[in-house]
Parts: sequence; C-alpha cells; structure tokens
Amino acid sequence: MEVVQVLCMNGGTGETSYANNSLLQQKVISMTIPIAEEAIANLYCNTLPRSIAIADLGCSSGPNTLFVVSELIKEVDKLRQKLGHDSPEYQVFLNDLPGNDFNTIFKSLPSFQKEMSCQLGPGAGPCLFSGTPGSFYGRLFPSNCLHFIHSSYSLHWLSQVPEGVDNNKGNIYMASTSPPCVFKAYYEQFQRDFSIFLKCRAEELVAGGRMVLTLLGRRSEDPSSKECCYIYELMAMALNDMVSEGLIEEDKVDSFNIPNYTPSPSELKFEVLKGGDFSIDRLEVSEVNWNIYDGEFNTSNGFSNDGYGVAKYIRAVAEPLLVTHFGDAIIDEVFHRYGKIIDDRISKEKTQFINLTISRLVKDDKIDSFNIPHYTPFSSELKFEVLKGGDFSIDRIEISEVNWKIYDGEFNLFIGFSNDGYGVA
Amino acid sequence: MEVVQVLCMNGGTGETSYANNSLLQQKVISMTIPIAEEAIANLYCNTLPRSIAIADLGCSSGPNTLFVVSELIKEVDKLRQKLGHDSPEYQVFLNDLPGNDFNTIFKSLPSFQKEMSCQLGPGAGPCLFSGTPGSFYGRLFPSNCLHFIHSSYSLHWLSQVPEGVDNNKGNIYMASTSPPCVFKAYYEQFQRDFSIFLKCRAEELVAGGRMVLTLLGRRSEDPSSKECCYIYELMAMALNDMVSEGLIEEDKVDSFNIPNYTPSPSELKFEVLKGGDFSIDRLEVSEVNWNIYDGEFNTSNGFSNDGYGVAKYIRAVAEPLLVTHFGDAIIDEVFHRYGKIIDDRISKEKTQFINLTISRLVKDDKIDSFNIPHYTPFSSELKFEVLKGGDFSIDRIEISEVNWKIYDGEFNLFIGFSNDGYGVA
Repeated sequence: MEVVQVLCMNGGTGETSYANNSLLQQKVISMTIPIAEEAIANLYCNTLPRSIAIADLGCSSGPNTLFVVSELIKEVDKLRQKLGHDSPEYQVFLNDLPGNDFNTIFKSLPSFQKEMSCQLGPGAGPCLFSGTPGSFYGRLFPSNCLHFIHSSYSLHWLSQVPEGVDNNKGNIYMASTSPPCVFKAYYEQFQRDFSIFLKCRAEELVAGGRMVLTLLGRRSEDPSSKECCYIYELMAMALNDMVSEGLIEEDKVDSFNIPNYTPSPSELKFEVLKGGDFSIDRLEVSEVNWNIYDGEFNTSNGFSNDGYGVAKYIRAVAEPLLVTHFGDAIIDEVFHRYGKIIDDRISKEKTQFINLTISRLVKDDKIDSFNIPHYTPFSSELKFEVLKGGDFSIDRIEISEVNWKIYDGEFNLFIGFSNDGYGVA
Repeated sequence: MEVVQVLCMNGGTGETSYANNSLLQQKVISMTIPIAEEAIANLYCNTLPRSIAIADLGCSSGPNTLFVVSELIKEVDKLRQKLGHDSPEYQVFLNDLPGNDFNTIFKSLPSFQKEMSCQLGPGAGPCLFSGTPGSFYGRLFPSNCLHFIHSSYSLHWLSQVPEGVDNNKGNIYMASTSPPCVFKAYYEQFQRDFSIFLKCRAEELVAGGRMVLTLLGRRSEDPSSKECCYIYELMAMALNDMVSEGLIEEDKVDSFNIPNYTPSPSELKFEVLKGGDFSIDRLEVSEVNWNIYDGEFNTSNGFSNDGYGVAKYIRAVAEPLLVTHFGDAIIDEVFHRYGKIIDDRISKEKTQFINLTISRLVKDDKIDSFNIPHYTPFSSELKFEVLKGGDFSIDRIEISEVNWKIYDGEFNLFIGFSNDGYGVA
C-alpha cells in the first residue's frame, strides 16, 4: 500500500470528518503547546530573526490546523513588544500528505488572517501562509530555510506498512500474539523512517533552528504493551467478529496492518542521538484518556461521551486506509462494532493514549569529523540485538554505575596522583 | 463584491472545468514561454544561485498549472549542465486565490515530481512545491525571498469592481456606450491595483530578481476598443436578450460589471516606470484568435471548433462571478446564447485577444534618493489628464523630436564649443 497516496484524515466538515472529530488531538495540542511556545521564545530571543519561517508537519484540516501556528506567532509578538523590537515577518508552511483537504484550510485563511492581524495589532509583521503537500519522510523545503518545525500526532505514522509482517495473522498492528519478526519489522521501519525524517529536517532548518515533536508512544520498553497496542487490538476484534460471521474474508484481515509505530522514550531518544544532527533539551511523557470527557461534565458538546465517540476519532484518521483495503461497504458496520467494544472496555478499565514530546531539538553545527570508535548502548538496544540474533534468551538486564574516579572515597596508598582527573584521563 | 472570495476558475475536471477548457491559455503560454525561459536563463547565469525560488501567480488548476514551472526548471537544468555547475534546489510557489482548486493540483504532484526527476536525470536538485493562497494585490511572500516571478493571463483581473460604475447601464464592462466616468473608474482601479502589485513584488524579490508577466490588453490607446471589449459586449448582448424576455431583471445586468482591465502597452509601461522599482527589458504585443483552431485542421480534440467552444473558455473563468451575482439557474442558458452569438460573429469577422508580455522586469537597487523635479509624460497620460479635467477637448497630439546637440549638422559661427556634449550639459 502506498501510504503517501492513501493516508489522509477524512476531509470536509461532515459528521465523520477529521475537522469534526479532532478534539482529542486538540486536547493534546493544548497540553503540549507551552513546550512549543517556550522553544520558539528561546529561538526568537537567541537569534532575533527579521523573518521567521515556521512549518507545521502533518497539519491536517480542521480547527487544529491553524491553532498551533497562531499561538506560536502570538508568543513571538508578545516577546518582541516586550523587547521593543520591530516585528519579524512570519512565513508559515502547512504540510500534510497530498490527499489532505488543503482547499478547506485555504478558504478559511482570509478570515483567519484578518482576525490574527486584529489580535496582533498594528505593529505586527505580515503572516504569510503556504501549503506544502508531501511526505515528511522526504525533503519538503530548501536547505537552511526554516527556523521552527512543529509536528503533533503525525510522526507515529510510518511511510509504509513494514515488509515482513505477512504472518501477523488475526492482528492489524503489533499485538501480544504477534510473532517476534513482526515487532522487528515494525521497529526497523520506524528507525529507517525517523532517521530519514531527522536527516531531511536537519537540512531544512537553519543552524540553531528548533523543532518540537509530539507523537503517540508508550512508556514501556515492551512494544506489545497494552498502552500502545490495545486500541488496534479492539479494532482487530471488530474485524475478526465480522470474519466469523462471513462479512469479511479472513485473509483480508490477515493482510491488513496499520502503518504506525508507537516508540518508547528511549527508542525515540536513541534515534535522535544516533543521527547526530540534533541535541535534545527535554523529552516529556504525558497521557490523555481515550474518552477525553472522562470525569468531566459535558453538556454543551454534541460529540458522544463514550466508546462510540472514541471510535469516531479513530475513524476520522483511519477510514481512508480501511476503505482502500476493505472497500467502503463494511465501514459503517466496522466502526459501529468497534464503538460498542470500546464502550464496553472504557467502562471497565483505564484506557489512555501515551504522548511523547521531544522539545527544543536544536540543529547542531557539526564540530568536526573525528569520532571515537566506541558505542554505549541503551539497555533496550542491547536487549533488541540479543533477541534479534535468536540464539540467546535473556534472564535479566541490570544497570549499575562506577565512578570516573575509581578511588573516590577510598584510601589509596600506592599510586601517586591517580586519585583525580589526571588519573581518569 | 469581494473578488478575492468569489473569483476562481471552475474547479475539478468536469465538462465546464477550467482544467478542461484552458487550451487558449495553454496556447498563449506556449507563445510566450521562450521569453520567460530567456529571462530565467539570464537570471541563472548572472547570479548562479544555490537555490532558486520561483512563484507562478494565478496558477489556476489544470494542465497549465505545472507546465510553465517545469519548462523553467528544465531551462535552468540545461544551462547548469552546460556550465558544469551543481544543480540548484528549486522551490516553487503556486499562487492563486483561496477558492482555487489546490487539492487537484496537489494530488497530481507526486507523479509530476517523479516524472520531472526522470526527465532531469540524477544530478538535478530537488523540486519542492508549495501552494500559496491569496490575492497578489497584497503581500504573499517574505521580503527578499523570490528569484523569479511568472504570471500569465491573471493580471487583467482587478482586485475589485471599480467604484463609480453604477451608471454603466446595459453594459458589463467598458463599452463604446459607457459614460466617460466608467473608463476613468476602470483605469484608476487598474493603476491602484497594478502599482500595489509591483510594490509587493519588489519587496518579495531578491535584488536582481526577474519577473515576466503576460496579461490581456489592447494595442489601441482607446479603452473602448473592440479588441479588448468585444468579448464582454457579446456577453452583455446575451444577458440583455434574456432581460427582454423577462428571464433576468434589468437592474441585475445594470449592476453587474466584470473586474477586468485590459491596458495598452503605454499604460502598462507607465505604471512600471512610475513605481520605480523595476526596469523593463522588453514589452511584446501578440494576439491569439478567439477560436484557437481557426484555420487549423482539428479532428482529434473533443473541444468544439466554434463559438460555443469560445463561450466555454469564458465560462470556465467567469462562471463563479456570474453565479454569485445572478444565481446558478440561468447559467446554462446564458452561455448557450453567448456561444450562439460568438459563433455568428467569428464566422463574419476576425476576432482576437491581444496579449501584452512585459519581460525581464529586473528589480533595481535604489541608487539614491535624489530626484529631479521634472516629468516627461506619455502622450496617453497627457491626453488622460486633459480629458479628466473636462474643460478642454483635444484636436490632435503630435510627437516630434529635437537633437540634444541643437547645432548638429548646422554651421555655427558665433559660439565656441557649444556644438558638442559640453554644450548639451
């Protein structure tokens, strides 16, 4: 399946559109926007650019599309007023795959720009918008032209369904019953994609440019953890029910796999450090309930406060993928059953999405090309290589430390000055 | 009427779409593309940029949209190979009003980019596309970021219907029966719009950046000339026929005016020189038959080789304007009658559109702020001011010359060295 050609959020503004079913994503943006604001404030104060080029990658089409960017611009404008500087010009690039509904965004721009210019007041520079269609797993912009990159809830989408997951029978994503090679295939696809992503962005950002990324992930090192796989295990349940009733062919489900990967914090950090183009300021883990109204009083909003509402969120983002594979005749039924299953589960257990936010990825200037042939693995990498080989099983992994100064705190009679930094060197 | 919100080419790929009714515009682009190629070649050889940002203003949505840009990129690539340079990166901005069908363009981009990269071969830099929605009578891009601007068949569209044309009864554009104030209102709107256009582009272009513009115009100094007004006089005829049959209310036609202006070469040149930001290399006038198959043998193409085909071209560009004013119930009938009228006329007389192409508008660096209080008008400006005042009529305007060296070729007995450059000074 060509994900680039197929993947898109449901367009338009109808009942099943992404525009009308993206409150979850909005909540996540609201939770993480202070991190992005801090990063752009830091960028502005450090570089005082006359023009700021901001890209939002995976912008989709709906109320969230312009929200992030408008908050970032307001943050910079507040700062430049405080510092008494002339306003920079703002160039905003809204990126998503070519199937995204850019027309709806563009039609809303004139009134949005009018409102922005009212909110910012007379001294503010122009806010100039462009849409950039294409996969972020490739170059989107010229070298050294962006100052700030933001992406929310997009980077867990892979460029393709990994190769070698043919034997993931009965599942549509990594699941506790998936064979080991499925986990390996998914992880390696994530590594390839994410490293290409970082390489491309490093070329496009100016030196010192900043990036803030939020994506679905997991806390656990276990890729079959319920915290990341459960949502699709329940969808597989709905599909398998329909298989057992003869409504869907079994091999249709067996050959369908969601092109997502939900990394752990250490997997994410490892890819960034491996690439060597960026330094990381912080990595935050947060969570959001599947049912975003859980525990909240909600009368004013038409969206269903239950499992069916959750199924609608997933429908808005996954429907084009499902339709391409299964056809559109079964879609209503799939999501009806899916909603019912989710509804049952969320009444019985705590169900949450885990968000990873890496912040202030600053594009480094390369200092030199000299590198020590020495590698210090994460525990997860060590484990992964052992399991990949298939010759050993692991009983336990322990992490311990040893002081740089090995005699630290101990009496050392025989050796002269080794109990110090010279000794370490 | 808010032209920005209303004006757009008919979207999609259906029978009345612009995409399927833009062969006339394609023919004009084919006629003028060598001028644009020459200009970008000149830019490339003079500046050898590592990255070239090209904007096509009024790109519409159809086969013409990507044609110009791909020819320009191929031209640069040919040159850089000849000169043995590394390829620049290409950043392309496709601009049109927010109502333009960008989705259709964007969906065609992946295959277009694949084809381009095949045609250019391995050494070529990436071709990165963005869509920029908005009116070109305002800022679209940051300062000093574009190298080359192209626009074809867009700049005769004004930003609004001129104010003060309420008494243009029975007409929908400037016509021989329009009162003088209508011509004045249209011309002044053109002057305001075109000078804003130039001012914005001068800010956006890098110093030395180039611009090539083609628009509908006229050869004659007379703004009611048939060569520019006839096409809409015939549309007014169709509308007035329907008024006389009670199908359209008379004041609906009286209050409808097309937001176009078709300038003369001297009017165009005057605005450029007045602005002072650009120098002009050349201004070319060309023509294209209304019926583009006129005199050509055409069997393979489905488009009608007659007046109905011409009416379809106009429908593809003007339908949204007409629908906004008259509603959509009458549209089929209007264009049927219009086609019939055009069909009758083109069999009896030569009907052509006049194209003006100004080339290699080079953004000047301002040398200084010292200016001589001295003004040398065009004959058309002189005439315009006299007629505007309304106190005088003009019998004739004559243009004559006098040598800088007034004694040139004459015997000069009395004066020492005045018969030379010192004397002129």
